[in-house]
Amino acid sequence: MKALVTGFEPFGGESVNPALEAVLRLPLVLDALEIATAPLPSVFGRALVALEDALVTTRPDIVLCVGQAGGRAELSLERVAINVDDARIPDNDGQQPIDRPVVVGGPAAYFATLPIKAAVAALREAGLPAAVSNSAGTFLCNHVFYGLMNEAAAGGRFRGGFLHVPYLPSQAARVPGAPSMALEQIVEGIAIILQVAATRADDLAVSEGALS
Amino acid sequence: MKALVTGFEPFGGESVNPALEAVLRLPLVLDALEIATAPLPSVFGRALVALEDALVTTRPDIVLCVGQAGGRAELSLERVAINVDDARIPDNDGQQPIDRPVVVGGPAAYFATLPIKAAVAALREAGLPAAVSNSAGTFLCNHVFYGLMNEAAAGGRFRGGFLHVPYLPSQAARVPGAPSMALEQIVEGIAIILQVAATRADDLAVSEGALS
Amino acid sequence: MKALVTGFEPFGGESVNPALEAVLRLPLVLDALEIATAPLPSVFGRALVALEDALVTTRPDIVLCVGQAGGRAELSLERVAINVDDARIPDNDGQQPIDRPVVVGGPAAYFATLPIKAAVAALREAGLPAAVSNSAGTFLCNHVFYGLMNEAAAGGRFRGGFLHVPYLPSQAARVPGAPSMALEQIVEGIAIILQVAATRADDLAVSEGALS
Amino acid sequence: MKALVTGFEPFGGESVNPALEAVLRLPLVLDALEIATAPLPSVFGRALVALEDALVTTRPDIVLCVGQAGGRAELSLERVAINVDDARIPDNDGQQPIDRPVVVGGPAAYFATLPIKAAVAALREAGLPAAVSNSAGTFLCNHVFYGLMNEAAAGGRFRGGFLHVPYLPSQAARVPGAPSMALEQIVEGIAIILQVAATRADDLAVSEGALS
Repeated sequence: MKALVTGFEPFGGESVNPALEAVLRLPLVLDALEIATAPLPSVFGRALVALEDALVTTRPDIVLCVGQAGGRAELSLERVAINVDDARIPDNDGQQPIDRPVVVGGPAAYFATLPIKAAVAALREAGLPAAVSNSAGTFLCNHVFYGLMNEAAAGGRFRGGFLHVPYLPSQAARVPGAPSMALEQIVEGIAIILQVAATRADDLAVSEGALS
Repeated sequence: MKALVTGFEPFGGESVNPALEAVLRLPLVLDALEIATAPLPSVFGRALVALEDALVTTRPDIVLCVGQAGGRAELSLERVAINVDDARIPDNDGQQPIDRPVVVGGPAAYFATLPIKAAVAALREAGLPAAVSNSAGTFLCNHVFYGLMNEAAAGGRFRGGFLHVPYLPSQAARVPGAPSMALEQIVEGIAIILQVAATRADDLAVSEGALS
Repeated sequence: MKALVTGFEPFGGESVNPALEAVLRLPLVLDALEIATAPLPSVFGRALVALEDALVTTRPDIVLCVGQAGGRAELSLERVAINVDDARIPDNDGQQPIDRPVVVGGPAAYFATLPIKAAVAALREAGLPAAVSNSAGTFLCNHVFYGLMNEAAAGGRFRGGFLHVPYLPSQAARVPGAPSMALEQIVEGIAIILQVAATRADDLAVSEGALS
Repeated sequence: MKALVTGFEPFGGESVNPALEAVLRLPLVLDALEIATAPLPSVFGRALVALEDALVTTRPDIVLCVGQAGGRAELSLERVAINVDDARIPDNDGQQPIDRPVVVGGPAAYFATLPIKAAVAALREAGLPAAVSNSAGTFLCNHVFYGLMNEAAAGGRFRGGFLHVPYLPSQAARVPGAPSMALEQIVEGIAIILQVAATRADDLAVSEGALS
């Protein structure tokens, strides 16, 4: 079984991206799971090209894309990707799309096909703060997550999902009040998610819903 | 031109719902717009039946469903409804669905068709805190919003959207640190949204996106 | 019986200060309580001169100073004033003191002598979000609160306290996610605090403590 | 030169206290600084007895008491201790004092005498989120901090301060949305504070103030 894990390059004026840092520290093999990794440019469009290349090259069974969620305190497994790019800040090429579809003619949304609730339960069991999130935003993370699930729908033979991770402590040190997570724990969290995804297809039937 | 505005009955142990209170205080006519209102039971399934009844009875051009978002500080216009019920607490009939579709076989999501960014701009212009939100949660608000847009897609001749409103001050007085909004301002906010929706079909091309 | 209520002029780039707006809308008489009001300049030092002038002129039994706490959701009655000026931003005269005592040689702190817990209970009873706060910050609000209680300690025959109020909705409309409170409710809240202060000297023995 | 560092035993239903865990992992010597540590019971009164015992036994030059601040994201160096116990929850002996002085007849407050701003600057420099805090609450942390500084004022020959630390990740895993910090980073942070305190008596003249 093979997993592909992607991480974005730094954006928004940061010199580091916790997602990419963590992805680059994953082992090559985890139990019976082979792990391939790919950095993605923090650029609309080009990120999807790089993702497709990696999919073609690695032919994974499981794909987890990982991105930074500055301001969140938990490892957040995203439930849904929506077909809209609405950029609050420019990407690394200066593009700032507004209300543009990720895929013209694509469905309004895709749901993750990894067992996100089982993963959240396993993360908490391991002592890592974790949650299901109902919005991946409307910037590059959602863009790549949507693109990934669109590939899956178009015949991809993989299951996919998206993980948002907190700032690293060194990033949060410059943002008053911002929560953070140590790099070791982000790496450990990704490994746990991959292991859960590799060992079960169905998800846990537990509530992780939000009232609003 | 006619608008239908709905509000939920109290739920979750509250004795009041700011959405319903506000909806019941709307005028019958606003400029050239006739306004019909309907209370919705805070019950999965039955809420949609009541909504459909109101749609049949009033034949509106514009529909705005309104719900309580305890903990939010702003009038939040929702961008997207997703096809999942995942209840963190039981509804008023004791139902607590987990990861069940709102509409079996329905698309993963629907986008609002009201001009939400123009409405947010008008609300702010009027001195009311407002935002575009990318998640209506997975409880009754999302349930009704999805059901509404599914009706629209199934031949309804209306444009639709969903508004989340903060606690009333009297509710927030029992929840340490919770933000609130005066009833008069929620009523005023709904009126502004309806006026914007009545006077323009297209939306503003301004960013209201979220990074994550 | 006579009360003096003060409110600051706008600062920090704002064109309005909810404290001053509310204070100016207080009635001249409330039950048996006469109410005098005074605006205070948002300037270190000069604010205390204006406060002393108002104390001399009005000879109050009760003094409530009121200030803006952007970001807070509740009416916050302050428990303690500390003898330090540490300004995060410049005041309206461009002064930005760092770790300077409010009163050279003064004690490290003064406690409010108004019945703050009874006031918080009465505010909540009236449906207004309220709390006891253990820090008035280190800017002008704490400066005036400390100066006030120093006057009381130096022979002033009044009881005194400080109230922090949220942004007005029109201010919060320009600060994403910021909570706010309607002006009418801030005015009502101040009146309730004054009535409680006028009718009891001792405080309620209920916990309003903070763990950290 | 000798430092005493204290940490509280778990309280409030927790089975672990990040403060104590970190303190127990400090080295015995740090550069030229000898480090003694002491656990404190999470009990009003008895905590101060244990603190006094440790002061007598170790005769330190520097004292840093450390406590848990569930909900905070940063290492928070406290500026001021106030003379009040107001317990939101019972301590480990079931005591829940309300508005009782820590020391009868003591001054209203004491300021920390460690260089807290220099320490915050050094922590951030090392990539650790840190802040000056203007309230240590009104529970056991403030109680011990006040008691410590009262000892210093009564002839103690040490400089003293208090550090609030976030939840450990394993604690935050059970509190939705709560920020946390890895134990290694808390330990590192304490060491940095001690080193700064050992090498300078005066503080940095930089603003770390709060508006409210």
